[in-house]
Amino acid sequence: ALCKSLHTKINHKLNVRVKVRPVNDLPPQKTPKYIGGLYTPQKMLVWPSGPPRNILIVKKPHKNHVTEALLILLGHIYKKYPKCNIILKKEAAKEIEQIEKDGKQLTEERSIYTGTNSEIVGKADLLISLGGDGTILRGVSMFSSGTAPPVLSFSLGTLGFLLPFDFKDYEPALRSVFEGKAKVMRRERIECHIIKKKKSDGNEMSAGELEKEEEEFEAEEDRDDITESNSYSMHSLHVHAMNDIVMHRGALPGLINLDVFINGHFLTRTTADGLIFATPTGSTAYSLSAGGSIVHPFVRCIMITSICPRSLSFRPLILPTNSKITVKITAKNDLISANSEQTDLSGDITAKLSVDGIPVTELGPGDEIHVLSESEPKLNDKEDITEAHIEKYMEKGVWCVTRSDGDWVNGINGMLGFNTGFHTKP
Amino acid sequence: ALCKSLHTKINHKLNVRVKVRPVNDLPPQKTPKYIGGLYTPQKMLVWPSGPPRNILIVKKPHKNHVTEALLILLGHIYKKYPKCNIILKKEAAKEIEQIEKDGKQLTEERSIYTGTNSEIVGKADLLISLGGDGTILRGVSMFSSGTAPPVLSFSLGTLGFLLPFDFKDYEPALRSVFEGKAKVMRRERIECHIIKKKKSDGNEMSAGELEKEEEEFEAEEDRDDITESNSYSMHSLHVHAMNDIVMHRGALPGLINLDVFINGHFLTRTTADGLIFATPTGSTAYSLSAGGSIVHPFVRCIMITSICPRSLSFRPLILPTNSKITVKITAKNDLISANSEQTDLSGDITAKLSVDGIPVTELGPGDEIHVLSESEPKLNDKEDITEAHIEKYMEKGVWCVTRSDGDWVNGINGMLGFNTGFHTKP
Amino acid sequence: ALCKSLHTKINHKLNVRVKVRPVNDLPPQKTPKYIGGLYTPQKMLVWPSGPPRNILIVKKPHKNHVTEALLILLGHIYKKYPKCNIILKKEAAKEIEQIEKDGKQLTEERSIYTGTNSEIVGKADLLISLGGDGTILRGVSMFSSGTAPPVLSFSLGTLGFLLPFDFKDYEPALRSVFEGKAKVMRRERIECHIIKKKKSDGNEMSAGELEKEEEEFEAEEDRDDITESNSYSMHSLHVHAMNDIVMHRGALPGLINLDVFINGHFLTRTTADGLIFATPTGSTAYSLSAGGSIVHPFVRCIMITSICPRSLSFRPLILPTNSKITVKITAKNDLISANSEQTDLSGDITAKLSVDGIPVTELGPGDEIHVLSESEPKLNDKEDITEAHIEKYMEKGVWCVTRSDGDWVNGINGMLGFNTGFHTKP
Amino acid sequence: ALCKSLHTKINHKLNVRVKVRPVNDLPPQKTPKYIGGLYTPQKMLVWPSGPPRNILIVKKPHKNHVTEALLILLGHIYKKYPKCNIILKKEAAKEIEQIEKDGKQLTEERSIYTGTNSEIVGKADLLISLGGDGTILRGVSMFSSGTAPPVLSFSLGTLGFLLPFDFKDYEPALRSVFEGKAKVMRRERIECHIIKKKKSDGNEMSAGELEKEEEEFEAEEDRDDITESNSYSMHSLHVHAMNDIVMHRGALPGLINLDVFINGHFLTRTTADGLIFATPTGSTAYSLSAGGSIVHPFVRCIMITSICPRSLSFRPLILPTNSKITVKITAKNDLISANSEQTDLSGDITAKLSVDGIPVTELGPGDEIHVLSESEPKLNDKEDITEAHIEKYMEKGVWCVTRSDGDWVNGINGMLGFNTGFHTKP
Ligand SMILES: NC(=O)C1=CN([C@@H]2O[C@H](COP(=O)(O)OP(=O)(O)OC[C@H]3O[C@@H](n4cnc5c(N)ncnc54)[C@H](O)[C@@H]3O)[C@@H](O)[C@H]2O)C=CC1
Ligand SMILES: NC(=O)C1=CN([C@@H]2O[C@H](COP(=O)(O)OP(=O)(O)OC[C@H]3O[C@@H](n4cnc5c(N)ncnc54)[C@H](O)[C@@H]3O)[C@@H](O)[C@H]2O)C=CC1
Ligand SMILES: NC(=O)C1=CN([C@@H]2O[C@H](COP(=O)(O)OP(=O)(O)OC[C@H]3O[C@@H](n4cnc5c(N)ncnc54)[C@H](O)[C@@H]3O)[C@@H](O)[C@H]2O)C=CC1
Ligand SMILES: NC(=O)C1=CN([C@@H]2O[C@H](COP(=O)(O)OP(=O)(O)OC[C@H]3O[C@@H](n4cnc5c(N)ncnc54)[C@H](O)[C@@H]3O)[C@@H](O)[C@H]2O)C=CC1
Repeated sequence: ALCKSLHTKINHKLNVRVKVRPVNDLPPQKTPKYIGGLYTPQKMLVWPSGPPRNILIVKKPHKNHVTEALLILLGHIYKKYPKCNIILKKEAAKEIEQIEKDGKQLTEERSIYTGTNSEIVGKADLLISLGGDGTILRGVSMFSSGTAPPVLSFSLGTLGFLLPFDFKDYEPALRSVFEGKAKVMRRERIECHIIKKKKSDGNEMSAGELEKEEEEFEAEEDRDDITESNSYSMHSLHVHAMNDIVMHRGALPGLINLDVFINGHFLTRTTADGLIFATPTGSTAYSLSAGGSIVHPFVRCIMITSICPRSLSFRPLILPTNSKITVKITAKNDLISANSEQTDLSGDITAKLSVDGIPVTELGPGDEIHVLSESEPKLNDKEDITEAHIEKYMEKGVWCVTRSDGDWVNGINGMLGFNTGFHTKP
Repeated sequence: ALCKSLHTKINHKLNVRVKVRPVNDLPPQKTPKYIGGLYTPQKMLVWPSGPPRNILIVKKPHKNHVTEALLILLGHIYKKYPKCNIILKKEAAKEIEQIEKDGKQLTEERSIYTGTNSEIVGKADLLISLGGDGTILRGVSMFSSGTAPPVLSFSLGTLGFLLPFDFKDYEPALRSVFEGKAKVMRRERIECHIIKKKKSDGNEMSAGELEKEEEEFEAEEDRDDITESNSYSMHSLHVHAMNDIVMHRGALPGLINLDVFINGHFLTRTTADGLIFATPTGSTAYSLSAGGSIVHPFVRCIMITSICPRSLSFRPLILPTNSKITVKITAKNDLISANSEQTDLSGDITAKLSVDGIPVTELGPGDEIHVLSESEPKLNDKEDITEAHIEKYMEKGVWCVTRSDGDWVNGINGMLGFNTGFHTKP
Repeated sequence: ALCKSLHTKINHKLNVRVKVRPVNDLPPQKTPKYIGGLYTPQKMLVWPSGPPRNILIVKKPHKNHVTEALLILLGHIYKKYPKCNIILKKEAAKEIEQIEKDGKQLTEERSIYTGTNSEIVGKADLLISLGGDGTILRGVSMFSSGTAPPVLSFSLGTLGFLLPFDFKDYEPALRSVFEGKAKVMRRERIECHIIKKKKSDGNEMSAGELEKEEEEFEAEEDRDDITESNSYSMHSLHVHAMNDIVMHRGALPGLINLDVFINGHFLTRTTADGLIFATPTGSTAYSLSAGGSIVHPFVRCIMITSICPRSLSFRPLILPTNSKITVKITAKNDLISANSEQTDLSGDITAKLSVDGIPVTELGPGDEIHVLSESEPKLNDKEDITEAHIEKYMEKGVWCVTRSDGDWVNGINGMLGFNTGFHTKP
Repeated sequence: ALCKSLHTKINHKLNVRVKVRPVNDLPPQKTPKYIGGLYTPQKMLVWPSGPPRNILIVKKPHKNHVTEALLILLGHIYKKYPKCNIILKKEAAKEIEQIEKDGKQLTEERSIYTGTNSEIVGKADLLISLGGDGTILRGVSMFSSGTAPPVLSFSLGTLGFLLPFDFKDYEPALRSVFEGKAKVMRRERIECHIIKKKKSDGNEMSAGELEKEEEEFEAEEDRDDITESNSYSMHSLHVHAMNDIVMHRGALPGLINLDVFINGHFLTRTTADGLIFATPTGSTAYSLSAGGSIVHPFVRCIMITSICPRSLSFRPLILPTNSKITVKITAKNDLISANSEQTDLSGDITAKLSVDGIPVTELGPGDEIHVLSESEPKLNDKEDITEAHIEKYMEKGVWCVTRSDGDWVNGINGMLGFNTGFHTKP
């Protein structure tokens, strides 16, 4: 339960009764247009069929000041945009309901919509994020297999690379979105396809079996008890990343061996703590800590950065978005032996796969993942890329409401402390 | 003079008398088409108006085995492609003439064309390079201000990143180019505009004065005594780089101070040995030595890598090609003083500017350079990028005849020794 | 069970019956002298009271070729040094006993001594290691709290930084040790004191409680079922490292926060995957992968290298051996909050502590470790270091039989591939 | 001439007439004792035969505020320590004389002593530095071939790593030195022996010729017209460095090739911009910019850091102080050719040698340098290091007056901005 003083503050701010309803009652998602020069990565967010109606708000859990901000935002939307429907994830909806119950009875009533993640996915016109970088990453990860709505994110307490707006500016920020005056920038995502070659009985999975695993995963996704912090499950087979796809040895004392192929050509075998595949957005996240360069989000590329490799000569790589990358987990050399006793040890060699910091699954020898850009047309051999393809794929990615094109430079300097010179003046 | 044994070999190989003629006698340059999906960086080299006629061959100077290769190539072209005209730079033409004079008299006669660099630039349909990476860089630098012809480069003795073909494969390589079957890949260039603000009398240069300097530079370029290794002069004001644009303190004991701006936003002031602006092609040259990432040539970006900065937090940056970068040389802080005695010291703070390893000029406090991508449409504020712009600018850059798309991976591994693991097997 | 063919080979080689006896039957450990200039790190290994009698052989488990080597070595020692007593760890002794049982009956009988780790520690005059770098590290870790015997290590199959001798040279290598002609070099160790401030009830541990924990740990150490690969237990409170002491986030998705103090002065708070404290010996292990410099084992220092820090400006540090380093695990900033709901989350923030790659324990907020050099005299404030102190502490560390002083340079080049130039020659 | 207002200030402060006298009139240098535990690097500065008499003050040239500080210091010493003799380098003495001439006539007269650098070297009991890090480096470089007096350095305007005291604290700092209460720390130096193998006629230099060159160099050193900023000359053959010895390609476009040997073992051939040999003191200077670790000044080692090497696998090395390092400049591979034409090109390949940032000489193919620690006893093969050796060599190096042992940590954080975390709080 929230502490007393918060309740008083909150009720003061919201001053309505809140009723939770099924998200399925809402009209389907409507998609905006991103208007601007075909090749300019910064565009205008325009709503051809009227302003957004269904607004999904995601928030950092377990933080009073974030809950408070949510209530302020609810109050504001109820008042200024009364036609809008608010969608919350189950956890957040419960929290609001609880506050309500604890509070004093009020006459006015407002609705909040909620449902399973996959129900929500088909309804949200706009995604508002209240929290830190992780809150957006988790919010966007709901739309991992489809089109994400535009994202308006507010920082609360901490600055973040993905957080252009301070919460205190929520009024003008919302207004510009509703009035079609907001600038948006595209953040490309990378896709990861997980191919588990081995079943527990040692045989490869058939296509049918793989499909079944995927269905089970999706069903599981919608279970009520899935926690907010873990929106993927063990059996996930196809995911998108805004920051990065990371394979890591985890808590294993031993190193992992990974074979990397680019467009079918063997690139390298790396023995390391792990390997990061990052988007330009993710270049300032884990990849940076592991020694990667800082890449502007408008550069179209996929980064490969290794984590503590047993090599003096692994330099971070920057590949074009049309690269098809395959990674195979390999057994330790010395375990590939005729000696049957050791085979049970091979179970040790597993790599943990995380997407945008969210643990997804564990992979063993023989398993592989494919990493590719979301925005690269998937053509058959005979097709050539046309204008139509381009237009379609240019819409992909996550469109984030932004402020000015100096934001990136400001972030590099202000947040990362880029090239802080030596302090030689007292 | 070449040694005796070489002469014998050469005459044996060439077996014709060579006459040097003025390159101005040749028909003007004809440009090929690069056919393929609009957005595929690897295309087919096609000659709509018949195969190339004027072939410029550049070679590494002072190397007997390179001269020998040149003679073999001349012999081959005279025989197989008799309609072709061979263009050589003055130095090389003289060398061939000399060999000729020293050799025994022959009845058959063939022509070689030469002239000033700017005369040659308007004539070459195809550029063949014999030597190392530096030979191509110097060859292409002739076309620094215009469109470069397609480049076919052969390695001689040393491997090189820009050298897909071994000289022993000259026959099939040439054939594929003449028959319109060669694959080419585009290497984007970056441009550098040099703005010298201060004249010796301390006043800014007027537009007229700048223009005059540029004209003088161009005139100078054509002087006979310009050495092959220094095709730029002190007063050059606008150059293109295939690898990199480097500002360096040179032999000065002191560090240089540079202020960097991106699209008008102040990025940083760096105190360092120097600063590198590199293309993806140049990512494996100086930038690599200074700690930069390895970037695939198909990624469209401009790299900023600093050389030994006085900072713990300068991380290499990768910017989009539509960035407009400005760098200003600044005086040392402590020299900006009211005290007139010190002003004479400010002459010390100069940065040496090199383009693709070729020294261009020296810059002092107040001077600035602009770095931008060659292939980015230069539009006025009201224009939007259209398909036509794209098509036009996609033709820019240097189109290099290539072998297979696995070349890059092979180069990374074979030449750079990327991610060589630890040798734990005896 | 080992496969048939191995048995035949083995029995052929050993040709004696092996009887396992209690290590307590053996005379106590005798220590050699390390003779040479007081300050020369390379000395002669001399046995004042006669050659070593009790020889502890440690081996890599689960490897047929290593077991085979062990049997060859046993055979050799039984024959050439019949007065020597062989000590094996329990696991290895069992393995030999098993082979024996499976084999045909033999008349001649030889002894093997075994016991708990702490029983063995008081008996071993010489430590022979058969395996890889990890085998020595695990062997030496048995002597974590006392004086380690000199180490003679053989590589088997793989090269290693700590493995100067190839197994095929076991005869001359052993002879030089027994005849007092072996050269030894000292590898300094660092110590780690673990101070767990919080008990499960939230109160600090009293001195008495800490002592009790330590005793329990030691008792546990001697339990029969402790596996070879995990010679430390959860409650270990004082350990020595030949390579490194590592704190790591393990499989946690979140980063860890560590506050580092040097001689009582606050150095820094690092948010990272982890932090490595390494000896010069360990400079080529994990620290190298994380970006540390290569330090010659004769340099007296403690290295601090961070693993993927959230900072652009963490540069590896090299401290003098008289540094007293303290590291405190801190809760995430945003968890230090008045709000009681979140306290349960703080359980998440744990750092895994490994010593020489062996997991030791897990630490939570408030816990701290002290890292210091083993060979630095521990004086009270009034004492000054004397010649006697120096002499005493110079004997500390692990004395490893070595070949020549060029070994290090050879290892840097041959094993690590240091400064491999670019391959520009075909 | 200094500006008027400065004059007035200065005369106000000094208020005496200054007479310049020959430094040879002064009694010879007296050396202090450094008292403390034999192996503690921080000791007490004690004057067994009374406080220092001859005080050499070095200053940054061309800075009014530094000149002003010098005058304040002169006034203070004249008044508080009237028995002390002030020594200035010629340039500084002239400056003071000039101020005097320009000022009004005063009755009281005081002396200033000056002479050639080598005359000064034999007289100075204490070195006081006013300026930046470079001022100390240049001051200490005067004592490059002998024992340096203790150094008391004040920062003026800028902070510096080697500058523990702010000028405003000159009174207590001086007092502690005179009263034998100052703490000092030793900064070890490295030596560099330059061996020019080739004379202009291509023959090796004989021992006699080398000696003659050295004498000439020393004579030259004393010439009046040597500028303060360049205290070494072209022919210097034996120098000491407090920071670093650097070989660099300078303004040459080409890279240099250096072969490095350690104790006679070939380590590596590096093709690079240059190579740095640094002391721990120098670890925060050039070596840091080139990617080296931060080494505490009490660690006894020699660092090798390369500048922009053509290699992915050059990692900085930390060697023990008893290493004997040899570096040979090698001609470019491809110039070692039977072809006589190219030999003239070999003149290009020169490396510039700087010591503590001061240009010393240029080296060509065949030349070599030897780098070793100043404080390592130079013994013949039969000698063993004794206590006496240690004591003698422990006195070597430069003893710098220091404040507290937390200075280093403060410098790392305050000046270098070590491990500045990301700014996530607004
Ligand atoms: N050693 C490291 O640097 C590690 C970094 N991560 C990163 O954390 C990300 C997930 O973030 P959270 O859920 O917030 O986890 P988290 O709470 O563990 O925080 C990671 C930190 O990274 C920041 N961050 C996240 N995305 C960023 C971006 N694109 N640019 C700059 N900073 C960014 C966050 O603000 C936070 O300070 C992953 O995608 C991964 O990149 C994950 C593990 C280790
Ligand atoms: N410390 C360093 O690494 C330095 C590198 N350079 C580079 O040298 C280039 C000029 O080359 P040269 O005229 O041959 O000068 P050079 O004869 O000094 O050789 C530089 C080396 O770089 C190699 N190289 C050139 N371009 C390359 C590329 N794109 N990828 C991989 N390797 C490449 C060459 O093969 C040669 O081995 C400049 O553009 C600059 O990038 C220039 C100065 C210093
Ligand atoms: N990403 C990385 O580089 C990691 C390295 N380690 C290192 O592994 C060590 C334990 O070694 P193992 O038990 O063999 O574990 P392991 O079987 O996981 O092997 C680690 C590798 O490091 C090598 N190694 C060990 N000590 C070395 C040294 N002093 N110099 C050069 N190479 C060395 C081993 O030969 C082996 O190739 C730890 O002390 C830690 O330093 C541990 C975890 C991750
Ligand atoms: N790219 C770079 O970082 C370069 C650095 N240097 C360094 O400059 C030193 C000479 O210094 P100055 O005469 O002042 O030349 P300078 O006026 O060129 O300044 C070099 C900078 O290094 C600083 N510095 C000098 N010694 C230092 C130390 N031990 N620790 C931390 N910072 C230090 C100075 O305060 C100054 O800010 C050389 O010994 C060399 O190490 C020289 C050339 C290039």
